[in-house]
Amino acid sequence: MTEQLEAALNEFSQCIGESYVMTDVETIIRYETATFKTDRKILGVIKPGSVAEVQACLITASRYGVPIYAISTGKNVGYGSRVPSCNNAVVMELSRLDRIIDFNEDLGYVTVEPGVTQQQLFEYLKEKKSNLWMDATGSFTSHSLIGNIAERGFGHTIMADHFGNVGGMEVVLPTGKLLQTGLGRFKGAKARGIYRWGVGPYIDGLFTQSNLGVITQVTLWLMPAPPCYQKFFCSVEKEEQLPELIELLRPLRLNGTLRSAMHIGNDYKVFGSMQQYPWEETGGETPLSRELLDRLSEKWDFGAWNASGALYGTKGEIKAAKKAIKKQLRGKVKSLRFLDERLMSIAEFIKVPYRWLTGIDLGDMLKILRPVMGLTRGVPTNEFLPSAYWRKKSPAPNPEDADPDRDGCGLIWVAPIAPTGGVYAQELWSIVKRCLLKHSFEPSVSITLLTERAMDCVINIAFDRTVAGEDEKAIACHDELLCELTTAGYYPYRLSLASMELMDKDQSSYMGLLKQLKQTVDPAGILSPGRYGL
Amino acid sequence: MTEQLEAALNEFSQCIGESYVMTDVETIIRYETATFKTDRKILGVIKPGSVAEVQACLITASRYGVPIYAISTGKNVGYGSRVPSCNNAVVMELSRLDRIIDFNEDLGYVTVEPGVTQQQLFEYLKEKKSNLWMDATGSFTSHSLIGNIAERGFGHTIMADHFGNVGGMEVVLPTGKLLQTGLGRFKGAKARGIYRWGVGPYIDGLFTQSNLGVITQVTLWLMPAPPCYQKFFCSVEKEEQLPELIELLRPLRLNGTLRSAMHIGNDYKVFGSMQQYPWEETGGETPLSRELLDRLSEKWDFGAWNASGALYGTKGEIKAAKKAIKKQLRGKVKSLRFLDERLMSIAEFIKVPYRWLTGIDLGDMLKILRPVMGLTRGVPTNEFLPSAYWRKKSPAPNPEDADPDRDGCGLIWVAPIAPTGGVYAQELWSIVKRCLLKHSFEPSVSITLLTERAMDCVINIAFDRTVAGEDEKAIACHDELLCELTTAGYYPYRLSLASMELMDKDQSSYMGLLKQLKQTVDPAGILSPGRYGL
Repeated sequence: MTEQLEAALNEFSQCIGESYVMTDVETIIRYETATFKTDRKILGVIKPGSVAEVQACLITASRYGVPIYAISTGKNVGYGSRVPSCNNAVVMELSRLDRIIDFNEDLGYVTVEPGVTQQQLFEYLKEKKSNLWMDATGSFTSHSLIGNIAERGFGHTIMADHFGNVGGMEVVLPTGKLLQTGLGRFKGAKARGIYRWGVGPYIDGLFTQSNLGVITQVTLWLMPAPPCYQKFFCSVEKEEQLPELIELLRPLRLNGTLRSAMHIGNDYKVFGSMQQYPWEETGGETPLSRELLDRLSEKWDFGAWNASGALYGTKGEIKAAKKAIKKQLRGKVKSLRFLDERLMSIAEFIKVPYRWLTGIDLGDMLKILRPVMGLTRGVPTNEFLPSAYWRKKSPAPNPEDADPDRDGCGLIWVAPIAPTGGVYAQELWSIVKRCLLKHSFEPSVSITLLTERAMDCVINIAFDRTVAGEDEKAIACHDELLCELTTAGYYPYRLSLASMELMDKDQSSYMGLLKQLKQTVDPAGILSPGRYGL
Repeated sequence: MTEQLEAALNEFSQCIGESYVMTDVETIIRYETATFKTDRKILGVIKPGSVAEVQACLITASRYGVPIYAISTGKNVGYGSRVPSCNNAVVMELSRLDRIIDFNEDLGYVTVEPGVTQQQLFEYLKEKKSNLWMDATGSFTSHSLIGNIAERGFGHTIMADHFGNVGGMEVVLPTGKLLQTGLGRFKGAKARGIYRWGVGPYIDGLFTQSNLGVITQVTLWLMPAPPCYQKFFCSVEKEEQLPELIELLRPLRLNGTLRSAMHIGNDYKVFGSMQQYPWEETGGETPLSRELLDRLSEKWDFGAWNASGALYGTKGEIKAAKKAIKKQLRGKVKSLRFLDERLMSIAEFIKVPYRWLTGIDLGDMLKILRPVMGLTRGVPTNEFLPSAYWRKKSPAPNPEDADPDRDGCGLIWVAPIAPTGGVYAQELWSIVKRCLLKHSFEPSVSITLLTERAMDCVINIAFDRTVAGEDEKAIACHDELLCELTTAGYYPYRLSLASMELMDKDQSSYMGLLKQLKQTVDPAGILSPGRYGL
C-alpha cells in the first residue's frame, strides 16, 4: 500500500467513519468478483452515508490522486457487477444513501437516492396506498433504481425507458461540487423534476453511462395505475419467422397502439427461464441441440419466438387496442392470447379448465407467468435470477438466495440496438446464432421493442465459471460476438466491463469532445477512470 | 470598422462567396429588428452554403476574434427574431443549408438541415405520398425546423415536444470540428437517428438553448398518420374556473388518454386570433375592458378558458378515448365537442345545419378552426401571424404577407413552465393578469399541457411599436412580469432576447459547469456570446 493511498484511506475514515472503510480480503474479493473473468484489482471499499460525505470523499480522492469507482448498490449483474473499469481503484458504494426524498401522487413522481432499491420503492408505494406504478426490471429486487437509470436500463411498462422518464438529478461533480439539473438549478422552481429540459443547455445525459459525476438524487416519473391492463402473448413457430414477426409488431409499436416495451424471447430463452441445463439428457454435452430443445419443450406451448406485451387503459381503450392487435396479427402468428389478473387468479386455482380455455399447459408455466405478469405492472421480482444458474450442475438456489457473483455463475450480457425491422432482426440473429453455437453456448436471446423505433437484442452468454476453461471460452465468444455485431453496425445500448474497450477505439470528434469535457470536470482524473472510454 | 473585422469579412467572402457576405445598411437594419426594442448592433450577415463553409467561417471567426451569431432562418418572432444576444456580432444565417438528407417511411424519421422549413417538409411528405405526419407550430410556415428544435419549441400533435423527438444531430463545434451525436458517432451504425441515447454520455441536449455548437443536421421523428383523428373542444364559462379545468384535464394527460399537447386559450387569446383591437368601440382606449370583450365576443360561443386537444388512433381507440374524456368532463365543462374532418367539410358547405348539430356559430370561427384542425395533423399555417397585428391601427396584411418585424408589430412572448395543476395555473394567471393590466396590455394567454406533467403558459405582450412610448412600456411590463413569475418559481421554458439576462443572475453550480464547458468548447468565445447566459 502506497503512502498516498494510506493517507487517503485515513482521511476517508475520518470523513465517513472507520467502519465504512473496508480493506479486508473478504470484501476486496467480493467486490472484485463478477459473473465473468476480470483481473481488476481494487484497493478498498468506502460507503459514505450522505451527500456531504460523497463530496468529502471525492475531494480527498482528488487531493491524493486515488481513483474512485462509484456504484449504487453494485447489482450490475452480467455487465460487471461491482468491478471497476480501472485497476487499483477504491470502490465507493452508495447503498447507505437510501432515502425517498420526495413523492407526488397527483403529478406522478418520486425523488430517490442511489441506495433506494426497486423493492423499497415498490413497498413505499404500497404503504402510501398510491395509485402509481413504478417500472421494474427482471433483475434483483435489491438493485438500485439510480444504478439502472445511470446505465440507461429498461423495463416492461409504458415507462420502460428509464432514463427517458427522469425529470431531474442531483449530481456531485468529481471536484466535489454539488449541482441540481433541470429547473432544480433555480431555488424554488415549481416545475423542478416535472419538466426535464429546464432552461438553457440540457445536461442530464452527461451523467449517464459516464464518469462525469456521481448521481446522488433522481426524480423519477411514475405512471398512474390504469383502470385495466392485460398482458398479451403471441409466437411464431419457426425460427425463420422472426423478421415476419418483427414487421408485424413494428407498426403497432410505432403508432402507439402498443405503448409499452414488448419482449420477444426465443425458445432457448424461455426454456432457460423454466429450468437449468438438461445435463442428464445431453449426457454432459454442450451446447444444447435444437432437437433436444424441441423435444424437451414440447410439453409447453411456446414457439421459436415468443412475444409478450401489455395493454393499459380503460376497459374501452383496451378493447380497442385488442381489436387493432387482432386485426394486425390474427392468422399470422401462433396462439395470440390475452391474459388479465382475473384469468391469472382463476388459473392459479383451476388449472384444468384454464387449459381448456386457452390451450396453455400451465404446470411450471405459471411459475414464469406470475412474475411476468407482475413486471407488467411494475412489481419487482427475483424469480428470474435462478436462470443465471443455467449451466450449473447443482440446483439453483431459491430466488431470494440467488447470488450469481458468489456462486460462480457465468453470465455476460451483450445488448446491441437496432432499428425495429425484420431485416435487422434477421441479420442480428444470424450473427448471434452462428457466434454462440460456434463457441458451444446456447444462443439465448430476447429482443425488446424498447421504443417506437428501436429494438434491443439482449444476448446472454451463460456458463459455469467453476468449470476450467469456460471463463476464457466465454470471453472469446463475447469478443468475437461484439466485433461481428459492431462491424455489421449493431452497437450495444450499454457496455459491460468486458466490452468497455470498444470505446477506446473510438476516434470520433464526439469522443474527442467527451474527453475534453472529462478533463474539464475531473482535472485530477479520479472518478471511475475508463468508464465508457473516458 | 476595425482591421480585424475587415480581414475577417474578406476571408468570409473568400470562403463562401462575396454575395453571401452582406454589410449593407438595409440588411443590417433588417437583422437588427425584432418585434420589441433592442439596441444590439450587428456588423454583417453571412450565409454559408454548406457544412464545410460553416466550419470555415467559425475557424475564421475564431482566428480574428469576431463573434458569430448563428441562426437558422431567423423566424424566432416574439423572442427576438434574428437579433444576436451580443453586440457587434456577425450573424450567420443557415437558410442555404436546406436539404432533406434522409427519409424513412417505415421507421418514421427524416433528417434535415437548418434551412429546411416547416412548409418544405410538409410539401416533401406530400410529394412522397408519405403516410407520416410532422408536427407543426402555429408560427411562420417558413420557419426552420431545426431553429425551433434548438429552442425546444413545441407544437400540437403527439410529437409536440420537438426536442423530445430528435433521434440525433450533426453539430459543428465553435472550433470548426464536426461531430455526429448518438449512434451517429460510429460509422455505419444501423440505429443512427433511431435510438437517441447512443452509447456513453448523451450530449444532444448541450446544443439546445445554447451556444456550444451549430446544429447542421437533425434526425427528427415523425408519426404515422392514424386511421382516424378528432379534434375536441371544451371550455369553462368563468375565469375563476381555470384551476377546475386544469384539474379535470390533468389525469387525462397523465394517464395517456390524451397523448397530444392540449392548448387552453383564454378569451383574450381567442378574440385576438379572430380580429384586431377594436379601436373604434374602445374609443382608442387601452387595455380592452372585460365588459367590452364580453360584449364583442358574445356572438361566438367561447368561454373564459377554451381547451382543445386531439385524439389519434383507430376508430375503436378514438371511441374509447372519447368515452373516457366524456366520463371525466361531462357536466363539468361547457360545450364538450368533438370535430373530425368529415364534420369540418360539412361545416364548410352547410353552416346552418352544422350550427344546429353542434351549437357553434360558424361565421369567422371557421377561419380559425380550419388552421387549428390542420395543426392537429401537422399542417403548417400562416393564419395566426396576423394576430401579431393586434394593436395596429391599419388592417393586418394577408397571412402570407405578414412580417411583424418589418411592420412594427410589437410582440414579446413570455412562456413560464409549471407543474400541471390547478393551484399553479391559478397563481400564474393571477400574476399575469395583474401585471399586464397594470401596464395596459391585454392578458392574452394560452396554456399548453405540453407533457404528461408540465404545462407551459405562453403570454403575449402585444403592442404597436410605431406608437411612441409603447416599446418602453412593453419592456417594463415584460421585466416586471418575468421578475414576478420567477420570484414565484415559474421559470420560462425558453428565453427571449429580452429575458436572456435572467441567466446572468444564476450563480448555481449548474451555471458554473456550463461556463466551464463553454470555455472548453469555445476557447475563443466567438459563438453567440451571451446566449442563455453563456
